[in-house]
Formats: sequence, structure tokens, C-alpha cells
Amino acid sequence: MKTLTSDDLKLLESRYRARLVNSLSGVKSANLVGSTDKEGRENLSIVSSCFHLGADPALMGLIFRPAVVERHTFENIVETGQYTINHVNGEIVEKAHQTSARYPKSVSEFDATGLTSVYENNFTAPFVKEANVQLGLKLKKRIHLEVNKTELIIGEIVLIRLSEDILKDDGFVDLVSANSVGVTGLDCYHSINKGDRLSYAKVDLPITKLNLDGEKL
Amino acid sequence: MKTLTSDDLKLLESRYRARLVNSLSGVKSANLVGSTDKEGRENLSIVSSCFHLGADPALMGLIFRPAVVERHTFENIVETGQYTINHVNGEIVEKAHQTSARYPKSVSEFDATGLTSVYENNFTAPFVKEANVQLGLKLKKRIHLEVNKTELIIGEIVLIRLSEDILKDDGFVDLVSANSVGVTGLDCYHSINKGDRLSYAKVDLPITKLNLDGEKL
Repeated sequence: MKTLTSDDLKLLESRYRARLVNSLSGVKSANLVGSTDKEGRENLSIVSSCFHLGADPALMGLIFRPAVVERHTFENIVETGQYTINHVNGEIVEKAHQTSARYPKSVSEFDATGLTSVYENNFTAPFVKEANVQLGLKLKKRIHLEVNKTELIIGEIVLIRLSEDILKDDGFVDLVSANSVGVTGLDCYHSINKGDRLSYAKVDLPITKLNLDGEKL
Repeated sequence: MKTLTSDDLKLLESRYRARLVNSLSGVKSANLVGSTDKEGRENLSIVSSCFHLGADPALMGLIFRPAVVERHTFENIVETGQYTINHVNGEIVEKAHQTSARYPKSVSEFDATGLTSVYENNFTAPFVKEANVQLGLKLKKRIHLEVNKTELIIGEIVLIRLSEDILKDDGFVDLVSANSVGVTGLDCYHSINKGDRLSYAKVDLPITKLNLDGEKL
């Protein structure tokens, strides 16, 4: 095993350290956040910081650094209270990655990358038509994390749009069929292999495999 | 597309809703959190809520529900200020999943599942020997998220142990060779396919693919 201490980390060149530390939490989800400002100007930004926070109410967290490329998105969310989260899939990886370029606020990343904005159910934030999982969220809470000056945005999922057939009998969503990708580090995109669903773990009972509908094989 | 509104979500059976909403953030990392209580009794718990929070200092977040299976882990972290995060890999998925069974506090999930605890560099929390990525963390901040009564634990990475050869020239970590798995929903474990690293996105410049060391192909 190779070992690095916090002293070693301090001595690393900053981009090297960013690539390393961004790899350490494991595989992350790749999502596109759609938003508009008060004037309705669209913004679209790829994020790998989206995480599940709770199912009832359905809450999701997003981390924003204070002054970086995602700032337009952060400002829009605070300004309008609405945003969308859209799964990146294998068909749109390069377009999705391109949204991380530093476009001026007047440029819609939808226009710049060729992704398609759609508006649904009176939601003012744009969804990504090409995504197989599209979520509409309302801002619930913004928390400044003083420990490193990041911002935690907590949103409630108020609209879910899914491709037909990926929602299974017991509520599980088949993200392999959705072609949702994972990201490692800052820049590496991975498709995921067909997975094994495992039974609820109990003391003194062996684990069994389940099919995608949650039934024992 | 299939559409669900927040009214639809409210009407769902609770376990169905948990499976659905846990799927919506996309693929998550699967990690084992190692800890001890003040008396040195070991605990090991699988989590899918670990997320990258910042590279300098190297910070990671973890979400805990207030009164569930991971509670021993949460209490231990608050009690001792130390814990480890260890990537689940394809070789240990079933043992890792089994740690989610409700063992009493007197039982070490290492003993119950056959995973191996190791102690390194005067760190009091146990690492998982079988993991190819092992991290030692010190508690920096605990934040109660009133919005759904969950707890956010923020830790600083103070020790990194990696398998030889997975750390690439520019700091990127090859998590495919590490065999680190992703999880979707509550119970589905996926290996990830060899990924494409993409060049830093710039306005008016096409994206190119990089090799694992970050060099243009």
C-alpha cells in the first residue's frame, strides 16, 4: 500500500491534490443542473456533488464552491428557488462535460452544447430533454459551511420524470437501462455494469440475490 | 416519460418511496465506515452517503439518520473524533452489505462478516484490510440538519492508504483497477467500466480524451 499523511497532502501541487482528493470518496453521480435567473436566462451546469439526503420528504443536497464555474447556477437557485437535476447518460457525456467551460452568463449552455431545454408542469427551471431521469426541485435550505466556505443547497424533489420501463415493481429505478453514468475524480466518466440487488441484511440470515423487481432469484 | 408529482410521492408506500427516492441522485459510492467506541469496541457500517466536500483541506461529508442502523457509527465518531472510510470492492460486496444488519453494539461487524480490521499510524479507528482505498479521518464539524433531522458529519482526511499502481501521474486514482463499486437505490451494487477521462472544458475548444495519466491520446 502507498501511504500519504496530511503533511504529504499539504505539500502537493494544488491541481494534483484536487485530482487525488476528488477521487477518494469513490464513484459519484454525474448530473446536469438546469436553472434560470430572474429574467429567464437559462443556465446548465454539470455537477458531481449531488447526494441523497432523505426520502420523506424527498430531499437532495448539492455542494457549491463560493466563486467558481457553477456560480451562475448557485445564484440562480438562490434567486428563483427552483432548479432541475438531470442524469447524465452515455449519449450526452461530452456535451454535459462541455457545460463546465466558463461561458458568460448571457450564454445558455443549452445553446452552446446542443442539449435541449424543456419546460414542464409550470416549472420555471428547464429540464434536459435528453436525460432519462429528470427531477424538478424547490430550494428548502441554504447552509454556508464555514469549515471550507462551501455552500450546501438542500432541495425538495417536487417533480420526477423517468423514461418508461426503468421504474421497477418495488420502486427501484434501473439506472443501468437509463444509461446513467458515474464520474471518478474530476474528469473520468464511467458506464456502470448490470448490478446485483441484495436482500435486506439480517443477523444470522444469509444474503440472497434479488431480481430488478426486488424478488428473490 | 412517466411523471410523478410531490402529491404522488406522498401517497406511496414508505418502502417503495425509499427505494425510488434513493435511486434518484444517481450512482453512489459504497464505503465501509470503521470506528470504535471509547472502550475500543469496533464497529463497521456500510454507507452510501459519503461525498466529496473539498480538496484543501481534504474534507468529506457523511449523512446519518438520527436513529437507525448506522447509529453506533455516528455515536462512535462523535465520541472519539476518528473514523475510517474504506472503498467497497467487488470481492467484498456481500460481506460489506451484511454489515447493515442490526448487530448489537457488543458485536464487531468485522468478526460477524469476516472482514479484517487493521490499525495504522497510531489511528484508533480500524481500517478494512481488504479495501484497496483506505482513508483515516478526523471529525471537523457535526451539523444537525433540522430540515429532516439528519446529521451531517464533516471529516478531514489525515491518512490515505492506496493499493500500489492505482495512483496515476497527475493525481487521478484509477478506481476501476481498485475494483471500487457503485450502489444504486438501497441495495444494488455495480462494478464500473473503464472510463474516459476528458480534457478540461474551454469555451470554443473541442473536448479531447485523456489517458489515465491525464495525457492527451
